[in-house]
Parts: sequence; structure tokens; C-alpha cells
Amino acid sequence: MGKYTLGIDLGGTKINTAVFDETEKIIGSARTKTEVQLGQDLVFQRIVEISREAISAAGINPSELVAVGIGSPGPLDPDTGYVIDAANLRFKNFPLAPKLAEAFHCPVVLDNDVNVGTFAEYKAGAAQGASVVLGMFIGTGIGGGIVIGREIYHGFSKNAGEVGHMVIKAGGPRCGCGARGCLEALASRPSMVRDLRKYVKRGRHTVLTKHAGRDLEEVTSSALKDAYHSGDKLVRKVVDRAARYIGLGLGGLVNVLGPEVIVLGGGVIEALGDHMMDRIQKGIRRVAFAHAVEHLKVFKAKLGDDAGVIGAALLAKQKLAIGSQAIPAIVNASGQEPGAAGHQF
Amino acid sequence: MGKYTLGIDLGGTKINTAVFDETEKIIGSARTKTEVQLGQDLVFQRIVEISREAISAAGINPSELVAVGIGSPGPLDPDTGYVIDAANLRFKNFPLAPKLAEAFHCPVVLDNDVNVGTFAEYKAGAAQGASVVLGMFIGTGIGGGIVIGREIYHGFSKNAGEVGHMVIKAGGPRCGCGARGCLEALASRPSMVRDLRKYVKRGRHTVLTKHAGRDLEEVTSSALKDAYHSGDKLVRKVVDRAARYIGLGLGGLVNVLGPEVIVLGGGVIEALGDHMMDRIQKGIRRVAFAHAVEHLKVFKAKLGDDAGVIGAALLAKQKLAIGSQAIPAIVNASGQEPGAAGHQF
Repeated sequence: MGKYTLGIDLGGTKINTAVFDETEKIIGSARTKTEVQLGQDLVFQRIVEISREAISAAGINPSELVAVGIGSPGPLDPDTGYVIDAANLRFKNFPLAPKLAEAFHCPVVLDNDVNVGTFAEYKAGAAQGASVVLGMFIGTGIGGGIVIGREIYHGFSKNAGEVGHMVIKAGGPRCGCGARGCLEALASRPSMVRDLRKYVKRGRHTVLTKHAGRDLEEVTSSALKDAYHSGDKLVRKVVDRAARYIGLGLGGLVNVLGPEVIVLGGGVIEALGDHMMDRIQKGIRRVAFAHAVEHLKVFKAKLGDDAGVIGAALLAKQKLAIGSQAIPAIVNASGQEPGAAGHQF
Repeated sequence: MGKYTLGIDLGGTKINTAVFDETEKIIGSARTKTEVQLGQDLVFQRIVEISREAISAAGINPSELVAVGIGSPGPLDPDTGYVIDAANLRFKNFPLAPKLAEAFHCPVVLDNDVNVGTFAEYKAGAAQGASVVLGMFIGTGIGGGIVIGREIYHGFSKNAGEVGHMVIKAGGPRCGCGARGCLEALASRPSMVRDLRKYVKRGRHTVLTKHAGRDLEEVTSSALKDAYHSGDKLVRKVVDRAARYIGLGLGGLVNVLGPEVIVLGGGVIEALGDHMMDRIQKGIRRVAFAHAVEHLKVFKAKLGDDAGVIGAALLAKQKLAIGSQAIPAIVNASGQEPGAAGHQF
């Protein structure tokens, strides 16, 4: 009987893998580029190969793995283990968990990458032990995850937690999803860059154009941070406004979900969190009812880049420990889900 | 051992009570005005008196009651049975469930009125058997309730489900809660009337001014309906816009909560639902992801005015049947909650 778990964090640009021992310590890890342009079958091979590297680095035998957890962009089906249609991964109706179960001869748990990140913060990061956790990750997009009573909340749609796609400003800027005024269209990094570009076209000044040109291509969160630090007025205006929108969005979510802890992460928060947190908190308190914020805690995420592999491994472990009739999300090599209807409550 | 349950629907204007037999049939009912100006102690007496009338109408002995359920405006604490601070009821830190338990010598379950209405639709109305139900009730305000896996979802705040207070239009009209651009400030009946009044002041015409004057005081949902029917352009414009906002708000909630069924009720929907439902659905589909709406059902509430008493009685019954260690919401005559921490998951 093995005792090691493998955590995989599958993203549009890189694959991160790590092997954990019984004490949840990383004993071996490996990462590589995803190379989505290769197509889903070759990307799957890369996942298996890099995982084997992590296993080898851990100095264990693959047969000692007791479970594999993997976080992936969605939409996906955590019950069947299929990725349904992940645009930035170019996966379509792909049996990711069943195929991994076949490759590693052990049960595999698949979940949304942001859910997994939130779960990691709940189990081992900023939100440990909280009864209701709302995670929001702000970067290229805005994703979210909800943990209620020890479990990732999936909803009937199996893809709940998409907090970036609530309308905060009806009639506002067009979002990548097609709607107008979504939080993601107001406060993600590309949205901030879009606003900056507009101001620059109107003749406003920012230090960012020095390196990135008037089109502000490839402006990173870290470049935004440096500009903010240097006192760049335009960047401050745009970042402060994004923080305000995030606060308003979270305020509404506090009224609807009544979380105990909100965890904020992602590239924008990692770079600019210190400047944004106060405004975010103010926004929340402007919207949320007093009794809902009274005991609310708002934290920055703690686990950074490792959240994905940690969350995936811990999720697989928790689901296994519960007993198989309660674990529809665990898929065995046959690709059948052992459990029933698929709702965790 | 008794077998009857008493359901109480406590509102700012009226108190509705009904006694249910084992088959969930109403065998006696009574209602009266709340008279909030009398203060919480005298209002409590009125609740007890009108309940006794319902019991008497049912032809049973009060000792045959096995449980009492009551829905009340919040915020409230379903674990201790206290109403914390209900403005339109003028109750403040009032031990409503403990005092009712004392009066009727049986366990009492207290919950938010809109939660109770949603629960009623889940148990006996439009959303029967759904795994995740989102209720939204639109009238003087906009309230909501969430049922997940058979249970009312309360969150850590114990007052989750306040769907009327998400910001849909940042910088929009001031809401009664103090924030700007909440859904309630965009799509409740008073918000529609406010918009109509503004247009009338600017010289626009509506048939409503005939009876209600240029100030449009006391415009009911039913008056809005008649005007809409008659082809009143201004009323159509304002009602259609409200429906669109409701759709946008629900679309975001679909992305976050992934419900199986949305139930829409309240005075505005009862009067204008036939005209609004299409636009609401369109708004949802503009915002919600395809995989989240694929199997989503959106229904009008079925139970109307009786939802409150039905939901309260059924909630009390369900909580009792679960076994007392799992029922923190049931309060006995001593005012102590028998269970522990207060989260239902």
C-alpha cells in the first residue's frame, strides 16, 4: 500500500507537479511548459512525463502513489473527470482523470484550478479551518472558488465559483466572455492595461510607455507595481479603481454567501496587494451588511505558485479518506464514476 | 405525542398563521395586522394570539403541536432564535423563538422570511427536489434565499442570500442600504416608481399620473401591470429595464452558485411576471456561461401568499426529523440551542 500523493497543476502556459509524503511535505517536484499548440493528446503525454520526473525526483516507485490530484482550467466535470471545453488549454471533452488513472494505476481527482487553489488556502494557507471560504484570484482573468463545510462547492452546474463573471457595471466595458461590465472586464490586469492605453491615446502620461510603448503591450503586474511605487498618477488611478470594483464585487458576494474568510490571490494581488487591500476592504464594507462583515476576515493568499500542486494533492487525499461511496469525483481507470448523483451535500 | 405543526409568517404589515396536519394540509388559519408601532413586546403578544386563533380554528389542542416554524424579516440568528435588528419590524435583539417555545411548549424554528419562502418552493412549489435552489423575491425590496442539498444555506454570517444587495451598476442610484447600484435600487417596485417619477418631472407621459398624481405615490405592482397592459410606453420602458437588470444579476449568480432551479416571486413578479420572464431569461443567458444554463430552470413561484406559513411549518418539521444534535436552529423553552457550532454542513 502506497502512501504518497501526486499533485498536478495544469495551466495554459506551464505544468507544475509535486509528490507529497504522508506529512504533506513535498519530496520531489518538476515543471515544464504546457505547449498547448501541440494539441490535447501530446499535452497529456507531457503531463505524464513531467509527473514521472517528479516521482523520480522523489525517489519513490510509481506504484507507491495512493492518489493523484489535478487542477485544470474549466469548464470540467469533477464527477467524470472530463475537461469539457477549456479554451486556453485547447482541451475539448477530454477524459483527463480517467487517462491519468490508467497511466498511474490509482484514483485521480480532477477539479477546477481556481477551486483547487482555494482549497489549498483552506487546508494549508490563509483560510485554514474556515467554515465558508471565498477565494478570488486576479490576474489575466478573475477566477474564484468556494469551500463550504470542508468541501469545494460545485453547484448543480458543477462549475460554480466563477466570481469574475458577475455584472458589476451594467453597460460597462465588454468582457472576454461576451457580456458587458463583468468584474473581470473591470479589474483584471488586461482590463487595467486597456484603460491605461485609452488614457495614453488621449494624451495622458505614464512611465509605462517608456518600456512598453504607447500600445502598452506586455505590461506585467510587476511593471504596474513599480509604476505604482514610483508615484505614477495614471497607474494609481487605474489600479485604485480596479481595487474599488473588486471591493464592490466582493461586497455583494459577502451578502449572498456570507463567507468567514475571503482569500485574494493571483498575479495582480501578489504584485499590488499591499496597495489594493485597503481599497478592497473599503469597497466590501460599502456594500456588505454590518452583520455580514462583523466577523469576516479578508486575507492575501499565502501559498503562491505552490497552491495548485498542494491543493490538488490534499483534495485527492481528502476525497479518498471520505470513503468511496461519497467520492463521485474520484475516477478509476475504467473512467466510471463509482458514486452517484454528484452533489456533495 | 402531537402531530400538528404551526407555521407563522411574520411581516412588517401582516401576520399570517396556519396549522398543518401530518399530510401537510392546512386545517386552520388566521391572519392579522402586525401593527409594528406597538413595539416588539405587544407585537409578540399579537403573534401568540393570532396563532391561538389558528389552533382554535383547526379544532386541536395546543398541546398537540409538535413544532412551530416562523419566518421573520432579518437579520436574525437561526441558531439562537433571536431577531437581531429587523428595521421594518422594529425588533431589536428579540428572543422570538425562545419566547414562542415558552408560549407553545414545543421546539420553534426561526428563519429569514425569504429563506422560508424559498424553502417552501423547494419542498412544495416550483423547485421541488432541486439540488440547488436560488429564490429571488421582488417587491418593495429584493430578497433571496438559497437551498443547497435539502438545507437552507445560511453561510458563516448566518444571513446569506441577500441577492438584492449585489452591485449591478457601480455608481448607479443610491440604495436603501446606503450603497449605490444594488439590484434592489434598480429593479424593486419603489425603484421603478422613482424612475417613472423622474421621467414625469421631465415632461414624459404615463397613465399612472391619472390616479396617483405626478408624485406617483402608492403605485402598486398591480397598477404597473395595468399600465403595462394598456401599452403605456413609459411604464414598459421602466419595467423592461428592471427585468433586464434582474436578468444580469441572476446571470452572475448562476456563474457563482450554479443553481439547478431559480424561483422568482414577490409582488412585482406576481403582477408583471408574464411580461418580465422573457427579458429576465435573456439577461441571464447574456451573462451566464453556456454550461451553467444548459440545464438551468427558471420558474415563477407557485405558492404565493401561503409560501411563508407552508415553508415555516415544513422547515420546522424537517429540522425536527433530522435528530436534535443536528438541529442548532431548534430552540427549546430555555432559549438554549441544543446543538453546537451552528453551520449546517
